[in-house]
Amino acid sequence: MELTQYLDVTADRVDKVIYRYFGDVFGDLFQASAHLLLAGGKRLRPAVVLLSADAVKKGSSDDVMLAAVALELTHTFTLIHDDIMDGDTSRRGVATVHTVWDEPTAILAGDVLYAKAFEFLSVAEASDRAKVHALRMLGKTCAEICEGQSLDMSFERRDDVTEAEYLEMVQKKTGVLYGASAAIGGVLVGASPVEIDALYQWGINSGIAFQIQDDLIDLLASAEATGKDRASDIREGKQTLLAIRAREKGLDLTPYRRELSASDIDEIIGRLNEAGVIDEVRAVALERANVAKQALGILPDSEEKQLLTDITDYFINRGF
Amino acid sequence: MELTQYLDVTADRVDKVIYRYFGDVFGDLFQASAHLLLAGGKRLRPAVVLLSADAVKKGSSDDVMLAAVALELTHTFTLIHDDIMDGDTSRRGVATVHTVWDEPTAILAGDVLYAKAFEFLSVAEASDRAKVHALRMLGKTCAEICEGQSLDMSFERRDDVTEAEYLEMVQKKTGVLYGASAAIGGVLVGASPVEIDALYQWGINSGIAFQIQDDLIDLLASAEATGKDRASDIREGKQTLLAIRAREKGLDLTPYRRELSASDIDEIIGRLNEAGVIDEVRAVALERANVAKQALGILPDSEEKQLLTDITDYFINRGF
Repeated sequence: MELTQYLDVTADRVDKVIYRYFGDVFGDLFQASAHLLLAGGKRLRPAVVLLSADAVKKGSSDDVMLAAVALELTHTFTLIHDDIMDGDTSRRGVATVHTVWDEPTAILAGDVLYAKAFEFLSVAEASDRAKVHALRMLGKTCAEICEGQSLDMSFERRDDVTEAEYLEMVQKKTGVLYGASAAIGGVLVGASPVEIDALYQWGINSGIAFQIQDDLIDLLASAEATGKDRASDIREGKQTLLAIRAREKGLDLTPYRRELSASDIDEIIGRLNEAGVIDEVRAVALERANVAKQALGILPDSEEKQLLTDITDYFINRGF
Repeated sequence: MELTQYLDVTADRVDKVIYRYFGDVFGDLFQASAHLLLAGGKRLRPAVVLLSADAVKKGSSDDVMLAAVALELTHTFTLIHDDIMDGDTSRRGVATVHTVWDEPTAILAGDVLYAKAFEFLSVAEASDRAKVHALRMLGKTCAEICEGQSLDMSFERRDDVTEAEYLEMVQKKTGVLYGASAAIGGVLVGASPVEIDALYQWGINSGIAFQIQDDLIDLLASAEATGKDRASDIREGKQTLLAIRAREKGLDLTPYRRELSASDIDEIIGRLNEAGVIDEVRAVALERANVAKQALGILPDSEEKQLLTDITDYFINRGF
């Protein structure tokens, strides 16, 4: 199956469950909790849970469906809280929760999804031993995501972020939830420790590659394609891998922390290309993607393993 | 053993574990997470976990110590988030987390403790089956606490809260966490469904009694004893059981939504006493306490069962 087709079919399956539980909720708090969840999204993390379960034990994805939804709930709770902290007003084409309601309601709406994530995971079809393992892993992962967001915010006040610090931040902010999605899919269907570790490494490294590609897209993609403000990272002085590598080469991007015209952006791209920064950053993403795909080597070949590999390739090849 | 002595000894045991994990943490985020946790507190919820475990299976409290701490982490996370929503500046004698750091850090600090609560519970010494049960219960409870806080905030914009609505709010905001503390203590040591339900009912009803007593204390206790601003509920027009019963009797407290002198407060107390409101509210608290204590009837007599009963009595007899 083509990845895009698989993701479409899977998003429909996941959405059915999400709508069953959150489609018709009553009261401000639960409507606020459901708001972003019902605004769509690719449901990539649930897809990873289902694929990982099937890659380890063919035909088990129905059993872990509630766990797959639990990972989407976790992701969505972090988005709701992040949007408050970052003061963002729109997400997935809708106004953010704290904008439609207010900050107290948005804090609680995130907290409700946080609770539901653990509840949904605890009722997946799996052995109790596997569920305890998965629940512990989800707890550990949530704490790490908080660290990632905290690091990300602290970088806004700094100009000397190192590459190691950047990689720690994206691993925690983005990587560990993909790692946990893959590993939990495996854990719940009885994967061996070696398989669980392989799935976790696949997820972590794919997630890091995803984030580096995101940084490239911000600079290189057209505003029409992304729906986002182009080169916003450079304008805001964000400590991305592009900015860090540029700084290492003595390329000063600080003069570009201002409104940027299309020709300003072309000039920046030209200078970064000349210094080899864009190729280098692409190479780092590619290297992470290779590490991710190689980690899957210990799993038997299957359509699902191939689709996980396709997800990694999609992460680094997507244009927006 | 006397309750006060038991609580002192237990708080020391719980504090040792809390200090081991949170006493020497590094970085803003983890220090913010530890701030309120290290500011002390009676550790009542952990004590309830330990007593409930011992009441069902003598000598098992060491096994459930990390679960006991998990319930304190849960309580503390709700306090950190509530303080942001309510704009409170001090708690347990220290400045609140969002005051010392900032709101984004406080949101994340609460989120970290939330994650750690599930992590700690998942590593308690108990069967996997019991832990899955306990983790599911904690998830369900956290969602209910959010509902309770949401109801509480919504009451601020209303003047027509009914007694049933008030009781639902205090059950969710305060009762369910005592219910879960008691029930989880039982679940982890293999209590029967009947015992688990009895412990849960004890906790819910004791928690409701606690909250009603809190409302009475706000009006009746001296400011010196409580360290709080006396009659603040009436000044702020809070929908407490006192206010609801007064309204039902045609007693209008709205003129007292202003700065209140000591003689104003004496006047309010006089009018509420005359109308029988204070006695009625005391009777409701007493009734809940009796339901709580009766629920324990199915447990074999033990020192720990007696101490749970003593906690209920303490909840409704304490003066601050």
